[in-house]
Amino acid sequence: MPITNAVNQIRKVIGERITVNSSILEQHGHDESWHEWQPPEAVCFVESTEEVKKIVSICNANSVPVIPFGTGTGVAGLVNAVCGGITIDLSRMDKVLALHTEDFNCRVQAGLTYKRLNQYLRDTGLFFSVDPGADASLGGMAATRASGTNTVRYGTMRENVVSLTVVLMDGRVIRTGSRARKSAAGYDLTHLFVGSEGTLGVITELTVRLHGRPAASSSACVQFVDLTAAVNAVIATLQCNIPMARIELVDELLIAAINNFSKTAFEPVPCLFVEFHGSESSVKEDAELFGDICREHGCTDFRWTANEEEANTMWTARHNAAYAFLAMRPGARNYATDVCVPISRLAECITETKADATTNVDVDHVIAGHVGDGNFHVAFLIDPAAKGELEQVESFYDRLVARALAMDGTCTGEHGIGLQKMKYMADEFGEDCLSVMRDLKLALDPRNLMNPGKKIPNQQGPA
Amino acid sequence: MPITNAVNQIRKVIGERITVNSSILEQHGHDESWHEWQPPEAVCFVESTEEVKKIVSICNANSVPVIPFGTGTGVAGLVNAVCGGITIDLSRMDKVLALHTEDFNCRVQAGLTYKRLNQYLRDTGLFFSVDPGADASLGGMAATRASGTNTVRYGTMRENVVSLTVVLMDGRVIRTGSRARKSAAGYDLTHLFVGSEGTLGVITELTVRLHGRPAASSSACVQFVDLTAAVNAVIATLQCNIPMARIELVDELLIAAINNFSKTAFEPVPCLFVEFHGSESSVKEDAELFGDICREHGCTDFRWTANEEEANTMWTARHNAAYAFLAMRPGARNYATDVCVPISRLAECITETKADATTNVDVDHVIAGHVGDGNFHVAFLIDPAAKGELEQVESFYDRLVARALAMDGTCTGEHGIGLQKMKYMADEFGEDCLSVMRDLKLALDPRNLMNPGKKIPNQQGPA
Repeated sequence: MPITNAVNQIRKVIGERITVNSSILEQHGHDESWHEWQPPEAVCFVESTEEVKKIVSICNANSVPVIPFGTGTGVAGLVNAVCGGITIDLSRMDKVLALHTEDFNCRVQAGLTYKRLNQYLRDTGLFFSVDPGADASLGGMAATRASGTNTVRYGTMRENVVSLTVVLMDGRVIRTGSRARKSAAGYDLTHLFVGSEGTLGVITELTVRLHGRPAASSSACVQFVDLTAAVNAVIATLQCNIPMARIELVDELLIAAINNFSKTAFEPVPCLFVEFHGSESSVKEDAELFGDICREHGCTDFRWTANEEEANTMWTARHNAAYAFLAMRPGARNYATDVCVPISRLAECITETKADATTNVDVDHVIAGHVGDGNFHVAFLIDPAAKGELEQVESFYDRLVARALAMDGTCTGEHGIGLQKMKYMADEFGEDCLSVMRDLKLALDPRNLMNPGKKIPNQQGPA
Repeated sequence: MPITNAVNQIRKVIGERITVNSSILEQHGHDESWHEWQPPEAVCFVESTEEVKKIVSICNANSVPVIPFGTGTGVAGLVNAVCGGITIDLSRMDKVLALHTEDFNCRVQAGLTYKRLNQYLRDTGLFFSVDPGADASLGGMAATRASGTNTVRYGTMRENVVSLTVVLMDGRVIRTGSRARKSAAGYDLTHLFVGSEGTLGVITELTVRLHGRPAASSSACVQFVDLTAAVNAVIATLQCNIPMARIELVDELLIAAINNFSKTAFEPVPCLFVEFHGSESSVKEDAELFGDICREHGCTDFRWTANEEEANTMWTARHNAAYAFLAMRPGARNYATDVCVPISRLAECITETKADATTNVDVDHVIAGHVGDGNFHVAFLIDPAAKGELEQVESFYDRLVARALAMDGTCTGEHGIGLQKMKYMADEFGEDCLSVMRDLKLALDPRNLMNPGKKIPNQQGPA
């Protein structure tokens, strides 16, 4: 058996840090999405790039699929062992390897989570900006091209990864670039691996950009009469070139869920959670201008946070929104959609989508989004076993994606393609473009052993 | 003869817009660098993506190399027809196809130059930020991953290309992404083609990001006692998180050349040309803070421009610096180096490099740079035929690149690899990483017909 051979050979490299314990396999067979669990055949807890190189080479020699695993907090089914194989858990690779404060970057191992990095940076005057809801690993965030509440100002992982160390299926270990702020040398391998969802190689180290903590910041929760009014206020704000640090939409049902879960007391109406970064005077200026815009767009109340602690409470509540939502229907699973459209089409897209969900889906939904990016989530709590629920939501998502693509948007702003969105790839990119992606995958992983069955539909199966 | 067949077949598609006129061939056989001219065997003036698709397919069928050509203003030898073949001149594809002011982007044909785009945008409140010295085409700028004086604030082409339309060697036409601000779908083909120097495909259309014109801006020329003092002021400024829009270093000899060429009257000492963008109050705040830093670092004078016209004069003079330099030695060619290092190493790198050039190279040199990015150019006026000049400068560049790479920098910040920097690729990326680039090139252009002999050393020759 190739898998038995591989496990035995790997045991010689990392000893008892490879396991076939069934509860550990179970735990590594799924993320936080609704997808059916598909456990791997073994899990390795690695501690260095060198170990990953050896393990991947053994898997390659035995034709065993490899699945990279960070925190398992994704929502696209990226870690499911669709074709069996061995999962490489990078959570023990969680060191900061070098901090370059003068250059606003640092080199870390891929298993470090972003919150732990920010704790590490606490006394440096710097911070790492990308902040998805879960405390994900930086390697996993790079692999899914993740974003978060700060993206409107500081960018996604695409803008915040300087270079990567990656182990390819054939055992080559590459560093994709230098620490220079810009370079016109080489093909941009950094960006090829950012967002590759573990299908081209295992990311083991990253150099990431850091940002200076703003001299001043100010947060508020702004209430609106309805969703469309809130979105129109966002669009007008962006038009006025106000450099928002955060501008997040949360609908009334999700506000209620957040209040229940995080013991907050926001008014259960559509809200924008916003934050301004800058100097004392620029924050004041921006906030005033923003206030004027909101009043013109049907804002009913404006609650400034009184201090840093209150601001932290608000943002932590926002980050935990998915868990708050899940708590509304114990035992259910979260089916989150994730389209992103050009800002000019956002109000139209959200309004049509809200009507569609209300009319055509029987289970409750919430809408939240990084609306400054044109990205929003409609999420449903489904019981995958309950008759019709999954089908209703899936057909809703098909319509939502068709709507977003017709507006020149994308089927996923930040969650990744994973398993279930593969069916949208040809519609989004066209067959020729998709065939180019297949060619690239084939060039770097000719036997499709690196996280097979994800991202690129109809890739030649593992061999 | 394959080339004769190809020319005859292309003539059926675009008539007299394919030419073998020797002066047109000559003109397309070189850029603005010192490299020996290598004219193609024919030049096509194309007017649509569809025409490019047909021409490239004909070249592919006849095994004839294809060289994309924008304005010929590069400095890395990118348009030389090293292996013969047919040059595709995109200068007639110069239309704005769609302007999306609300989304801060627009779609253009690849032959449009950035200055013409900015003229087009004059009344919109928006501008395109990437501004190399020459008025280059946007397709060429994407292909070389170009940058300019605004990069410290607004990024290079890497940050400002939203998506591309590309014709591949086998005739596939792909659009690499949507107009959404972010996406986690697909491999990042946009960034694979940005900086690919025409070796993976012909870029025919681009969607580029636009930025809102700042409410206020303010420019100054700041004089320093020496180069190191000026660079240290830059480093301190970046540390303080002052959001400079432009911060450019010009040494005393280049200032003298600029004064001669542009009829300006800057003091011939090392200077920083700077610009601030923001609101009235933030520009004032930033400028004051910057002034304090400069005074602490040996600034001897601070000349604010009085009005927009004076600011334009200063920046136009800066943009024409390469031409000003060339005018100092009629008949000579510009040999520009282009390393980029982490900011923390910039002062050390410039100081050592200055000493090296002064000691070891007999022809005069100037130093200028986008120092906010860690990028600087040491340029020489050489007569390639004069004994020893080219050799001296080349061995200087070898040492400069070794120095930059040892500091975790790159051999080219913005000019591209082209012909002569190929010898540095293995040192910068390592053999494994370089072999991955070769695999990707092979996957998309298996017979190496797309701008062969550039960027990737020892790629299998055209077949």
